[in-house]
Amino acid sequence: MNYFRYKLILSYDGTHYGGWQIQPNSLTIQELVQKALTTALRHETHITGSGRTDAGVHARAQVAHFTTDTSFDIKTLLRSLNGLLPPDIRIFDLEPVSDDFHARYSAQGKIYHYHLHLERYHDPFNRLYSTHIRYPLDQELLKKAALLFLGTHDFTSFANEAHRGAAANNPIKTLKRLDIIQEPGGIRLEFEGNGFLYKMVRNIVGTLLEIASKQRKIEEIPELFAAKNRCLADTAAPPQGLFLHQVLYTQRR
Amino acid sequence: MNYFRYKLILSYDGTHYGGWQIQPNSLTIQELVQKALTTALRHETHITGSGRTDAGVHARAQVAHFTTDTSFDIKTLLRSLNGLLPPDIRIFDLEPVSDDFHARYSAQGKIYHYHLHLERYHDPFNRLYSTHIRYPLDQELLKKAALLFLGTHDFTSFANEAHRGAAANNPIKTLKRLDIIQEPGGIRLEFEGNGFLYKMVRNIVGTLLEIASKQRKIEEIPELFAAKNRCLADTAAPPQGLFLHQVLYTQRR
Repeated sequence: MNYFRYKLILSYDGTHYGGWQIQPNSLTIQELVQKALTTALRHETHITGSGRTDAGVHARAQVAHFTTDTSFDIKTLLRSLNGLLPPDIRIFDLEPVSDDFHARYSAQGKIYHYHLHLERYHDPFNRLYSTHIRYPLDQELLKKAALLFLGTHDFTSFANEAHRGAAANNPIKTLKRLDIIQEPGGIRLEFEGNGFLYKMVRNIVGTLLEIASKQRKIEEIPELFAAKNRCLADTAAPPQGLFLHQVLYTQRR
Repeated sequence: MNYFRYKLILSYDGTHYGGWQIQPNSLTIQELVQKALTTALRHETHITGSGRTDAGVHARAQVAHFTTDTSFDIKTLLRSLNGLLPPDIRIFDLEPVSDDFHARYSAQGKIYHYHLHLERYHDPFNRLYSTHIRYPLDQELLKKAALLFLGTHDFTSFANEAHRGAAANNPIKTLKRLDIIQEPGGIRLEFEGNGFLYKMVRNIVGTLLEIASKQRKIEEIPELFAAKNRCLADTAAPPQGLFLHQVLYTQRR
């Protein structure tokens, strides 16, 4: 029998889910996508994501792969899967890939966006897709502080301990880009890196917010990096502002 | 005792509500805002809106007025009201107005936006704020058809019968503007008029969609107007694409 591997690209509103990864006590995106594939392909199907997203975190283009010996028409399968899934999860691309493609290990990097809503009241239409900051932010300070996170660092101080198995993950990561972009009602922080530790983006945003609101001095950032101690940096920013925007792969089939 | 009149401007995500106007069997926006005002001002308070919005319809800037003999600090009251209201309803402006200001009768016109999502799959982040059209639309035909609704007409064929009392509403209205604007993932129809009948925007959108998808001929529009019969035009477009964008008043205090 011939087995073929496929790559899925999906978008989801994480509001009502316990995150990407299957777990006992809450509904997850991985669980629903696997169930839809199992129904549509008529055999038990497992999917592997590029990485997990936490409860309440969104994805514009999460990537996952699965393997099947069932042959199918791609357009028809896509239609079936989206028909089986709730409207807050949409699979918008499905393509065959080579056997050595792995959603997680083949990834060269990721882009995350974090949205901050800065008006007096949180826009009802953005309330589930941004974090409302009620205090004044010094945006010049924010930009200066963001620069200090760029480049290759040991990000241990900005990484929560992973729940399962990922403890061996190398804490040295390269942040290639941390741009601050104005958008209606607020700003968006764009993070691009070769890899991210557990809660790393939200922990960095948490610390940036402390600095931009003058609760912490910008001079402390090098000390935080040097300490390699998660307890010294600030609380993670809330999940609803965070989007997994893109997973980067080199062109391959 | 002195009574003072105030004008409120509020934004709401209509997804979880039975519309603006108080009714027995579902939660409405008017009800929640009145309850919040009654709590904050410590006396029974009634509000009058610029008009109702149906179940599932959104508002970026609905306007309402109320009268009170309680004196208060505007900023403090706004903070209290938004603290009492759920996050899908935000009051973002509150100002004193003259005694003859009436949210409904003083309105000179309204602007509605209707959002159509035209990609293959409905974006999860827009699913509650746009209508997904799965069939191809001829946008040139849509533009031509939209022009035929402009100006002063008897809109009876595009008005559902109102439930309560508004039957005497004059069916002759002037549509000043019906613009079709490209936006990410689809298009937005902007309606500006001196007044709108019950379900008029959604009924016009329903007929425009029939024309742009070639289910109905553009030549039938003048006949539809002339017939003054709601049964001849098409089904109303769904509520989630519709936003009350602005209520227009002449400058006054």
